[in-house]
Amino acid sequence: MTPMSTGILASIESPRDLKRIAAPQLPALAQEVRETIVSVVSRNGGHLATNLGAVELSIALHRVFDSPVDRIIWDVGNQCYTHKLLTGRRDRFGTVRQPDGLSGFTKRGESVHDHFTAGHAGTALSSALGLARGRDQRGEDYWVVAIVGDGALGAGLSLEALNNLEVVRSRFLVIVNDNGFSISPSCGALSHRLARSRSRILDGGLFGELGVPYLGPVDGHDLDLLVSLFEQIKERKNPALLHVLTQKGKGHAAAEHDPTKFHGVSPSAPAAPSPSPAKGVAYSAVFCDELLQAARTDPCVVAITAAMLEGTGLAPFAREFPDRLFDVGIAEQHAVAFGGGLAAAGCRPVVAIYSTFLQRGYDQVVHDVCLQDLPVTFVLDRAGLVGEDGPTHHGVFDLAFLRPLPGMVLMAPKDAPELRRMLRLALHHPGPTAIRIPRGQAPRGEETEAAAPFLIGRGELVRDGHDVALIALGSMVGAALDAATALEADGLHARVVNARFVKPLDAELLVDAARSTRCVVTLEEHAAQGGFGSAVLELLAAHGVNRPITVLGLPDRFIDHGSKSALMDACGLSVKKIVKSVQETVRRAGALSRPPGQN
Amino acid sequence: MTPMSTGILASIESPRDLKRIAAPQLPALAQEVRETIVSVVSRNGGHLATNLGAVELSIALHRVFDSPVDRIIWDVGNQCYTHKLLTGRRDRFGTVRQPDGLSGFTKRGESVHDHFTAGHAGTALSSALGLARGRDQRGEDYWVVAIVGDGALGAGLSLEALNNLEVVRSRFLVIVNDNGFSISPSCGALSHRLARSRSRILDGGLFGELGVPYLGPVDGHDLDLLVSLFEQIKERKNPALLHVLTQKGKGHAAAEHDPTKFHGVSPSAPAAPSPSPAKGVAYSAVFCDELLQAARTDPCVVAITAAMLEGTGLAPFAREFPDRLFDVGIAEQHAVAFGGGLAAAGCRPVVAIYSTFLQRGYDQVVHDVCLQDLPVTFVLDRAGLVGEDGPTHHGVFDLAFLRPLPGMVLMAPKDAPELRRMLRLALHHPGPTAIRIPRGQAPRGEETEAAAPFLIGRGELVRDGHDVALIALGSMVGAALDAATALEADGLHARVVNARFVKPLDAELLVDAARSTRCVVTLEEHAAQGGFGSAVLELLAAHGVNRPITVLGLPDRFIDHGSKSALMDACGLSVKKIVKSVQETVRRAGALSRPPGQN
Repeated sequence: MTPMSTGILASIESPRDLKRIAAPQLPALAQEVRETIVSVVSRNGGHLATNLGAVELSIALHRVFDSPVDRIIWDVGNQCYTHKLLTGRRDRFGTVRQPDGLSGFTKRGESVHDHFTAGHAGTALSSALGLARGRDQRGEDYWVVAIVGDGALGAGLSLEALNNLEVVRSRFLVIVNDNGFSISPSCGALSHRLARSRSRILDGGLFGELGVPYLGPVDGHDLDLLVSLFEQIKERKNPALLHVLTQKGKGHAAAEHDPTKFHGVSPSAPAAPSPSPAKGVAYSAVFCDELLQAARTDPCVVAITAAMLEGTGLAPFAREFPDRLFDVGIAEQHAVAFGGGLAAAGCRPVVAIYSTFLQRGYDQVVHDVCLQDLPVTFVLDRAGLVGEDGPTHHGVFDLAFLRPLPGMVLMAPKDAPELRRMLRLALHHPGPTAIRIPRGQAPRGEETEAAAPFLIGRGELVRDGHDVALIALGSMVGAALDAATALEADGLHARVVNARFVKPLDAELLVDAARSTRCVVTLEEHAAQGGFGSAVLELLAAHGVNRPITVLGLPDRFIDHGSKSALMDACGLSVKKIVKSVQETVRRAGALSRPPGQN
Repeated sequence: MTPMSTGILASIESPRDLKRIAAPQLPALAQEVRETIVSVVSRNGGHLATNLGAVELSIALHRVFDSPVDRIIWDVGNQCYTHKLLTGRRDRFGTVRQPDGLSGFTKRGESVHDHFTAGHAGTALSSALGLARGRDQRGEDYWVVAIVGDGALGAGLSLEALNNLEVVRSRFLVIVNDNGFSISPSCGALSHRLARSRSRILDGGLFGELGVPYLGPVDGHDLDLLVSLFEQIKERKNPALLHVLTQKGKGHAAAEHDPTKFHGVSPSAPAAPSPSPAKGVAYSAVFCDELLQAARTDPCVVAITAAMLEGTGLAPFAREFPDRLFDVGIAEQHAVAFGGGLAAAGCRPVVAIYSTFLQRGYDQVVHDVCLQDLPVTFVLDRAGLVGEDGPTHHGVFDLAFLRPLPGMVLMAPKDAPELRRMLRLALHHPGPTAIRIPRGQAPRGEETEAAAPFLIGRGELVRDGHDVALIALGSMVGAALDAATALEADGLHARVVNARFVKPLDAELLVDAARSTRCVVTLEEHAAQGGFGSAVLELLAAHGVNRPITVLGLPDRFIDHGSKSALMDACGLSVKKIVKSVQETVRRAGALSRPPGQN
């Protein structure tokens, strides 16, 4: 029986249609939904295991509650595919994570049924409390339902919100979707507690302390049970907390067996997702390999991840040094402050974290690391545009928020060997360091160690030229070189500088590059406001160098999801667009020309 | 009996001396310590009530444990005065919070007994876990003791760390110093739980879930009991959690009676601290007054604070609109995401928060507010240098971390009327807004409403002149005007621009100011790297304006505590120093002079 033969899903244009279906048909609907998700995720990539675990929960919620009047808030948004299929987005579901297609997460503006955008874990309880309290303030009356995974429940933000449940006294339902995992298996006392509770009713324990009636745990795949529970809850007027047990990857044998592997899936590979394409090596793999080499000789080298063991490339480290790898769960604040403590005890902690998630630990970077000048190394993965995961996951603000911090050494490699050298440098530096690396493959570069010594605050002249200076950071060095080659055809001789360091900048190299040319173009995969180019502007102003300068970076808007190359082009950062911007800058400089070498 | 007549405290140069004192003398020592604290805080200002509550706890800890080999980590650091008196800093204790004197918090580098710098609440558990795990990794053997207040325990960072206690299996003691308060009375389910536990032993409840043996609650002022408990604990090798009940302000009648009032005390006023000097009105009071006016006509206006009801000036709002004021406790992440939810429900939330504490909610500003373009207004108090509280409390990075966020409207008033207009503007703007205000008094300014309309992205020309443009932000506008007056004596005619908006900048006004003069000086009370001046550099570069530009802001180091005026001078931001910098810039511009008006 294929999904289309029954066609129940095909008859659902909105949650209203779902309410008309006879109850005995619901399991068949769940089966259709599951098959649709597997088929689309196979093609487009996306979150498979979490979405498969939330099929019955989503159907039961929309069967009973009245979205969009009632607000259903999905934490992280990576359990929302069934929700999307049931809320008028079935026809477009095949476009999920595609350019101009549906987002892989919930997204305000995509549908009236998405009341809050998500992507980072642990926001649902807090924002749903705000929605519910705002509803009361406005004298309105509807249900607010927040669905939180057990992993996300351990996030500081979730716990702060749990501790503040008292702010809402009316219709508010918290569903803990407990699948025993966050992304990697859940860690922490809280999840042990949940694990124990799988076998008995929790009434006087953890949740009993929150001042909200607690129900559960119940089987999150039993549609009849869920529907009848929701109907009972809906009759009440008070807040409630429901603990639901689900199975990650439910209904997909391989994903049930290895849900971590099937958490995020690459396109066209649902049966056996490979971590990376064959060509080249991922930056994260290069990072882990170099870290392992350091750890083998220095027992003080330790690594921290916040529930991103695979994503950050640390899995091999965990296998070789299980007692030196700390997976603290979805707890970025703690990951950073814990790192500060490890450093204060004399260890060399490396916090491997996505750029966008370090935003969660920002105060700790300031207060618990930099202010104390502690030697913690941050390896910021997915810095820049990430592609299909979209705006919640692009890591495009890290330079802006890290650069003003005194003592921070901030760098970005152009290729694999440079990442290795930066990590070695970081692990011997007596203060805080951060290395930003993009998603994807690292250019192989030259493996030679015979090159010039690698020093803090020293960039690299990678191409000489006297018409225009292209000062590029990290992932943009290759594009700058390609642009320089293309500009040669115009008779324009571009100098290309690999800055390597955002802080401290290589003043000598950069000032010389500006003074030896007629104009400057800076290139970075980061917000143009307050980023690398801004640092170069400050440097040149401080040195009294007056040159036309164009800052090329990401524009001042949140960048949608899509293929990385298309996004880069749309942001003016493809080689073709870079060439154009350089030509314009040169033209502008020509208009007020002055021989190079003066000031 | 005066403290000096017994002179027990005078005999203690280090914790070793404390161990030699006969047990029956300890209460007298506690009394001496208390009198010393009251006397010094009367003179210097500081945290009174918390410090008085931790006297016996500190004595008992140093009596039993062996600091500095054993690591005693004080959360926030505002309970550390006794610790300072017992660890070789008695002679200098009179200098606490004075320029070049002792810090009001624990501070690495000040003493070998201070193992971690603090100032923000909730960091001790996490950093102490790092210290203990680092100790194990290095094969060392000493005790790590973390003391956390009940208020700080509700911070997401503390909760994340509590959830990760399992990472340490050896000598690690957590002391929950439960005084029933955070700064204002504690809120949240967790503190209700603690409150109930004051009457009975908690063994199967909240703390019982953490996998660590739980002891308590015990009387935190019973020295004999504390000493004997610590001795027993020290004999063990395993982690433990001790719940201690103390009284904030213990031993000081007025502070016992009103600990909130005596949380932070102004100099020379321990008997009856007045919230602010007579002259002028504090920015925070102006803010609350204007907010009240808005709230009286718009029932959707609501306010959020994270345990800073008095500090942010919101107390009158809480009195008039108790159900529209949300004090979420020390939970900055939740404060912001909760605000996002309120805005999504159609309310107009104002998050009143110190600049330095918004660092805790940064990801929520990005992900739960700006990304969804929700109309949340952030009023960032204590933006700039705060004076005596020092580097943990200076708010000098907010422009850097907020400016790159798409859609954010970022402003800073020069005086009270401008703050009022900015708040009115913010409360009618359809997207996110932030207003940064400094600590202290707001210049009265002109109360007239007849002035030009107040529009987003429009600055103000406050003084004409054609030699140099001083482009100033917020608190620096007054200093810029004073500098301009002083420069007149030199025959230098300075134009002064009040930028008002950091984002969006007033391109027309600023570009015109630069083009009409020979050089530009920007002024801000914020890190010079990545701040307002950096934004002006970007703007002028994008408009092809080549002028010598000097960015005046805070230098690239953490600024110590001290009097604000002395700190500003040391940072080059006093009027005298500004005049010097302007003269230099003009000289530099003269060297490569060009008639104004060209490009």
